[in-house]
Amino acid sequence: MNLYHNLAALLGQRIEQGLYLPGQRLPSVRTLSMEHGVSLSTVQQAYRVLEDQGLAVPRPKSGYFVASGWRQMPLPRTCRPAQRPVEVGQWDLLLKQMRSTPRADVQYLGGGTPDIGAPTLKPLFSALTRISRRHDPAMLRYDNIQGLSDLRQQVVRLLVDSDCQLHPDEIVITTGCHEALSTAVRTLCKPGEIVAVESPGFHGIMQTLNGAGVQAVEIPVDPITGISLEALELALEQWPIKAILVTPTCNNPLGFNMPEERKRKLLRLAQRFDVAVIEDDIYGDLAYGYPRPRSIKSMDQEGRVLLCSSFSKTLAPGLRVGWIAPGRYLEQVLHMKYIGTGATSTQPQMALAEFIAAGHYHPHLRRVRSQYKRNLERVSGWLSHYLPTSAGISQPQGGFLLWIELAEEIDALRLNEHLGSRGYEFAVGNIFSAAGKYRNCLRLNYALLQGNTMESAIKALGHELKDASLA
Amino acid sequence: MNLYHNLAALLGQRIEQGLYLPGQRLPSVRTLSMEHGVSLSTVQQAYRVLEDQGLAVPRPKSGYFVASGWRQMPLPRTCRPAQRPVEVGQWDLLLKQMRSTPRADVQYLGGGTPDIGAPTLKPLFSALTRISRRHDPAMLRYDNIQGLSDLRQQVVRLLVDSDCQLHPDEIVITTGCHEALSTAVRTLCKPGEIVAVESPGFHGIMQTLNGAGVQAVEIPVDPITGISLEALELALEQWPIKAILVTPTCNNPLGFNMPEERKRKLLRLAQRFDVAVIEDDIYGDLAYGYPRPRSIKSMDQEGRVLLCSSFSKTLAPGLRVGWIAPGRYLEQVLHMKYIGTGATSTQPQMALAEFIAAGHYHPHLRRVRSQYKRNLERVSGWLSHYLPTSAGISQPQGGFLLWIELAEEIDALRLNEHLGSRGYEFAVGNIFSAAGKYRNCLRLNYALLQGNTMESAIKALGHELKDASLA
Repeated sequence: MNLYHNLAALLGQRIEQGLYLPGQRLPSVRTLSMEHGVSLSTVQQAYRVLEDQGLAVPRPKSGYFVASGWRQMPLPRTCRPAQRPVEVGQWDLLLKQMRSTPRADVQYLGGGTPDIGAPTLKPLFSALTRISRRHDPAMLRYDNIQGLSDLRQQVVRLLVDSDCQLHPDEIVITTGCHEALSTAVRTLCKPGEIVAVESPGFHGIMQTLNGAGVQAVEIPVDPITGISLEALELALEQWPIKAILVTPTCNNPLGFNMPEERKRKLLRLAQRFDVAVIEDDIYGDLAYGYPRPRSIKSMDQEGRVLLCSSFSKTLAPGLRVGWIAPGRYLEQVLHMKYIGTGATSTQPQMALAEFIAAGHYHPHLRRVRSQYKRNLERVSGWLSHYLPTSAGISQPQGGFLLWIELAEEIDALRLNEHLGSRGYEFAVGNIFSAAGKYRNCLRLNYALLQGNTMESAIKALGHELKDASLA
Repeated sequence: MNLYHNLAALLGQRIEQGLYLPGQRLPSVRTLSMEHGVSLSTVQQAYRVLEDQGLAVPRPKSGYFVASGWRQMPLPRTCRPAQRPVEVGQWDLLLKQMRSTPRADVQYLGGGTPDIGAPTLKPLFSALTRISRRHDPAMLRYDNIQGLSDLRQQVVRLLVDSDCQLHPDEIVITTGCHEALSTAVRTLCKPGEIVAVESPGFHGIMQTLNGAGVQAVEIPVDPITGISLEALELALEQWPIKAILVTPTCNNPLGFNMPEERKRKLLRLAQRFDVAVIEDDIYGDLAYGYPRPRSIKSMDQEGRVLLCSSFSKTLAPGLRVGWIAPGRYLEQVLHMKYIGTGATSTQPQMALAEFIAAGHYHPHLRRVRSQYKRNLERVSGWLSHYLPTSAGISQPQGGFLLWIELAEEIDALRLNEHLGSRGYEFAVGNIFSAAGKYRNCLRLNYALLQGNTMESAIKALGHELKDASLA
């Protein structure tokens, strides 16, 4: 780590230890510069890191303050999953959840849907209307299996934000990130082979492995810095792993941004053991800091990284438009794409290409990013107010998902049932593990606070946790 | 076969042998009734079969006539593919074809796109416009992975046409028939396992097997009655086949409707050997006869048949909306669907549900069906006029695809290149076989005749065939 990262880590630690309380003023730039013998700009960079982590907020002409409502609650602990390949389970639970008809009397606060009511999405509706109204026959035709050329050009433009320089021919449009991920897994692995995954990790990824008959080695994840490179290295030494599958930016469910240097190290590990990297970047553009973090793909010179993403989190999931930049695996990925769905639905691709070309993507991003960041501060306040101090809470650096680790004896599934009768539901933790760990964890979506709903839900959660019958 | 089928077969044979020429009057119903000692209604039923086959046309108050322009050209021969499991090849060829940018100076007459310019599709554009204009947030949300409930209800209503009685909960909406088929194959088979397929058969099906690492046993297909049940039985006895994959109604590429009794026998074979049946019915609603033929699914009492279909051939492929009725495999299919694409794009589903509910589906079907049937008569006339008499031509009973078998020494790939320089291209035969057979065959799409284009293309084809350098 360089100077400013060291300083940021030190200050962060002090905030988390409660040396500086929420709302309190932090030491001035000049003081820190003198105290640590570093330049003023190094201190400023350190503060910018803390700002990105949501720990510090600047106030014009007054310096930096600890983010108000920011908690002194502990982070979720780094889990120690069994470091051997396992078959992915939990499908029954997930299926039950996904097939159940949404109950009008229950607010589901655990899903992965962003704010689709934002006024900055209006131009997207307009684009869809425009295309339908001009009776454009192109929208009814089979499109190229690689995806609409106009849209691929726009995707390549957006990828520059994460320092990725790609050509439209290196992009394959997919039916959401799901198709990108399963296409990648099926391209790289035969049944019985092994993929290293983050633990906890996105349940869609876990089920993709299950569906492809591929085994998972769960690698522990630090809630701030991401996948443990030491544990990953050990696993790579021990098992014939085919690919490393990570969500290193605005991670789901933990919300961390893996530091750039650690992303680089992960890539070097992949090179050393000659395995592919599947990088899920679906929340990446929702990072709270500017510029958004680099992707691992942007550091890849050999086509080893398959970047998977979509507009499902940044714009709207119902469009089902994602993409994969598969590097050296382009031809195999096209094969998997062809047999999976043929082409991707044409009209949403056309509408997205028009929406982005007209400059509507970044204004929308700016709007929802600051909304999610604001929501996070309020939600953090409620959590620290209503939840027992033993609860561990993640510190998202982007996106709109929060991970809650409860006391070990809590069964989140039963807790969720109790909450259901009060009208709220979260996502239960065990679907985020191949082996069904995290039974005492919940995931919460704070994209929308819905008036008093979110606060009431967290209050209800706190009430339930006082009930001893959950253990 | 019953009486009227026997009589129809006899009359059909006579027409094909040239005993009655195109445009000539066929024996009256009364004459045939006396000659064969059968009732008047039996003769009328026989004539209706011939009508469905496109061999005879009724003229009000004048009786039946041989369809004008109808050819005495031979049928394509039933092929004898090697009856052992093989790995599916031909992907390189198909990929090259699908990635090549369409050339403005070449008319591609081999694809699978229906007439998407029909005015009866206008209400579909209107539905899409309406939904976008009312800024319905439902269209941006994740839908149920099983698919929009309104659309599943409409699909179930349409399935009654093929005598299928299903509940909306037995349907899973997919991203086109591609996803339905690959979901079915992946549900039933592990890599290395074996599926019996029609030969020739749809290239998407072949590649689905390839992508899933599944081997294919190619079963010979009769150009009128479909898959050889004798050869299928032999294969089932000899190999551990997991599933039978057929397109028994309006077959692609041959256009036959497998007789109902043979469909029943196929199902009994599947029962006897306890294997699943994947029934591709994507062209089924485009059968020229009324009522449309029953599906194998409609005869299935055990949930053994996985019916796969979509709106890609009946309405428009760019919508990417299909479905699967997976019988007893529902839960596994939902798993595969979930990891494949999550949900299916929402807005097209909403628009289709509105389009069908408002009664626009059947008028469109009636229109395009009679258009395709008319086109077939004209195309058949041109083929018999311009092609050498040795060429075998299929006799489609629905859909808009025609299969042309050329002299054995013709290399259709080279032929197609020559035609390309004249501005036309067909689909080459070898992608319709796992082992790359049918190098001397072409598939032609007659959904649209495009002014003089189709006649000119067939004329050019005839010219090229006189060129000895193709062998």
